[in-house]
Amino acid sequence: MGDLLDRLRAALPAEAVVTDPDVTVSYARDMAGFCEAGAPAAVVLPRTVEQVQHVMRTACELRVPVVPQGARTGLSGAANAVDGCVVLSLVKMDRILEIDPVNRIAVVEPGVVNAVLSRAVAERGLYYPPDPSSWEQCTIGGNIGTGSGGLCCVKYGVTAEYVLGLDVVLADGRLLRTGRRTAKGVAGYDLTRLFVGSEGSLGVVVRAVLALRPAPPRQLALAAEFPSAATACAAVCSIMERGHTPSLLELMDRTTIRAVNDLARMGLPETTEALLLAAFDTPDPAADLAAVAELCTAAGATAVVPAEDAAESELLLQARRLSLPALERVTGTTMIDDVAVPRSRLAAMLDGVAEIAARHGLVIGVCAHAGDGNTHPVVCFDPADPAAAARARASFDDIMALGLDLGGTITGEHGVGLLKKDWLARELGPVSLDLHRSLKHVFDPYGILNPGKVF
Amino acid sequence: MGDLLDRLRAALPAEAVVTDPDVTVSYARDMAGFCEAGAPAAVVLPRTVEQVQHVMRTACELRVPVVPQGARTGLSGAANAVDGCVVLSLVKMDRILEIDPVNRIAVVEPGVVNAVLSRAVAERGLYYPPDPSSWEQCTIGGNIGTGSGGLCCVKYGVTAEYVLGLDVVLADGRLLRTGRRTAKGVAGYDLTRLFVGSEGSLGVVVRAVLALRPAPPRQLALAAEFPSAATACAAVCSIMERGHTPSLLELMDRTTIRAVNDLARMGLPETTEALLLAAFDTPDPAADLAAVAELCTAAGATAVVPAEDAAESELLLQARRLSLPALERVTGTTMIDDVAVPRSRLAAMLDGVAEIAARHGLVIGVCAHAGDGNTHPVVCFDPADPAAAARARASFDDIMALGLDLGGTITGEHGVGLLKKDWLARELGPVSLDLHRSLKHVFDPYGILNPGKVF
Repeated sequence: MGDLLDRLRAALPAEAVVTDPDVTVSYARDMAGFCEAGAPAAVVLPRTVEQVQHVMRTACELRVPVVPQGARTGLSGAANAVDGCVVLSLVKMDRILEIDPVNRIAVVEPGVVNAVLSRAVAERGLYYPPDPSSWEQCTIGGNIGTGSGGLCCVKYGVTAEYVLGLDVVLADGRLLRTGRRTAKGVAGYDLTRLFVGSEGSLGVVVRAVLALRPAPPRQLALAAEFPSAATACAAVCSIMERGHTPSLLELMDRTTIRAVNDLARMGLPETTEALLLAAFDTPDPAADLAAVAELCTAAGATAVVPAEDAAESELLLQARRLSLPALERVTGTTMIDDVAVPRSRLAAMLDGVAEIAARHGLVIGVCAHAGDGNTHPVVCFDPADPAAAARARASFDDIMALGLDLGGTITGEHGVGLLKKDWLARELGPVSLDLHRSLKHVFDPYGILNPGKVF
Repeated sequence: MGDLLDRLRAALPAEAVVTDPDVTVSYARDMAGFCEAGAPAAVVLPRTVEQVQHVMRTACELRVPVVPQGARTGLSGAANAVDGCVVLSLVKMDRILEIDPVNRIAVVEPGVVNAVLSRAVAERGLYYPPDPSSWEQCTIGGNIGTGSGGLCCVKYGVTAEYVLGLDVVLADGRLLRTGRRTAKGVAGYDLTRLFVGSEGSLGVVVRAVLALRPAPPRQLALAAEFPSAATACAAVCSIMERGHTPSLLELMDRTTIRAVNDLARMGLPETTEALLLAAFDTPDPAADLAAVAELCTAAGATAVVPAEDAAESELLLQARRLSLPALERVTGTTMIDDVAVPRSRLAAMLDGVAEIAARHGLVIGVCAHAGDGNTHPVVCFDPADPAAAARARASFDDIMALGLDLGGTITGEHGVGLLKKDWLARELGPVSLDLHRSLKHVFDPYGILNPGKVF
């Protein structure tokens, strides 16, 4: 331990190596519940690629586990410390190195906050789409590690689709460059994508080349009220089947609607069983909304409220943004799941979650990136009641089993981390799991990179 | 050899195992020049996943090399046979298993021809964008193996972006399922993308889940004539910098224009040094073309010809489609390169290629997916003249070196195969190459899958 700290300090500024347990404990976990977190031996906050290389070389030689970390807004425990580890926090490597409007790329360090990048590129008429709900805090490195999504994905896809190339410090301290700065490129195996979503288990991302898009027009939204989850889901299917490309297509179930009303008195109709929010950032969003309004009505919507302008659109979307804080108030704490199913199975997923909630005697609100079939069942429970917590955990497992039964995945955008690693094996099956282990061994033969996560 | 054939035939129909050398020789190579091809011991044409598994189990036990093959329209020698190998042709596995408009996916076998799939999904109001120029012959399996592109990529991206999940028969015959049928998913490492572009060196794709898009409106095109390559490239940069999203943005240089005129008397202005073709499939393509026409004129275009309708657009694009056959007529044969550079370096790339042509005393025409910075320098030479062939090979290398110097890649969409494997090492560098070798070893410990390709 003394040796570890001495060697780390030999090539790092004093303030970059933190060992005060009162401080290091604050780096011990991300925002996931039900996940263990160990006590770090040190938190290291490098500012350069060379410093990261020094950390990895040292850790490799001493066989000390390293847990790479962004802003710890993750929801799967992937950033949780293990006992005696070095927490490698990349938040001080937060420079935007380049924004290039002709080539539509940005080059960034991993600690750049998502919202900071989004605003910086917007000033140049560009758009970095991935918009996880933690976008004001979370870092690009963390987004890459977990493969983050957001509201925009139904039109613009997830983080993975915006990562063109990476600089990665490997477990032994070597620096790997993957991918490209060009729009296209097929030279060699796609190592870039292997790192995206690998939760720091294969290497430490120290620089990323990101694809940007031209800034779209501001989106215009509508809200549609439905008498059942099934009719709302039928509207989603019909919107997508008819070839529409909304910039956002979100669903809130009855539990969520009530919680938001209780929190913010937004006047959402409490008799409504499901609320659908759709938006378009097309050249003529009003025309697109009108077509979608018709499809909603045909599917059984009892009311459709289109926004007149951007301000009204924001007001409608506010309800969606308040869903999580509102559900958290119901019983004191929540556990948020992240199961994605084919969108044609969305209704079955919502019905199944309602059945699971009833069976366990729990409140479970669902908000969903409905256009993607990506549901976030939010299990509400009293953390002071161990029996309720156990039921919450059990319901969480039932929800993942339901998602797999419906042809879905245990995680659409939050990742596996600690929370879902037992379930990952079930989703992947033995052949894939075997290859996962072999790939991990190639990149990290001593098992020092974020050990115990993913699988 | 006798043992190999006996064991193959034990679980395959007689007509699925071809050993007549007059027939097998026709499976020995793809469309790349300057690449060696060996004599296969057998060509196997399976119709089921189980048959592919039987071939791989047999080959693995006997340590016989296997070369997976689609329609052999590849341009890098990746599908070329090696002596004594089993050519595993997937062209008989050509069923479209599913087209699902609600979930916007298709499930296909690898031998489905690109154009067959494109037409089948179009009938359902859907769009499978990747459109390599060989789309009437090439297979989806081949497209996945090489990571194919096409004209549409400037707006719609390459094959990789449409592959959601794969069934892959591994070197030892085990069946691996990767990815998902959902719009989103981050469960585990991205094995799907590892197979895309891996040229059959990691496994044999036997089934693919592909993402589809809603069919866009028919595109409308314009042609713009420029007095120099530099002014045409400046127009490309300006179009992309101003946030336009053309569905196609192609460039033809003077050599190509003349060759097309000679072939088809299309009346292209011979004094023009570069021709730019732009198209939009937006709701109001005429308005978008008008804006692009203005940018072209501002960049120095001497004439801008917008099409009035789809038929006129097709006529304009015909010139681009004839580029390769036209250049082939110049001296008898061609060697087509595939270097992608950041689009801001396109002018430097074109100037550099002109200098390389002059230095080697060769005719080199360039057509380019200009919006992507993806150039296809086409080296024309007389195959009966060994000195000319040697100069052609040398110029090819110079072009790749130039691309790398400009921050580009040796291959935008054609792949590495045999043709560029020495150059791949130069592009990747030693750390990446080392990881490539280790990954290959994980998937193919005995080195039987398409040996000698990629790296």
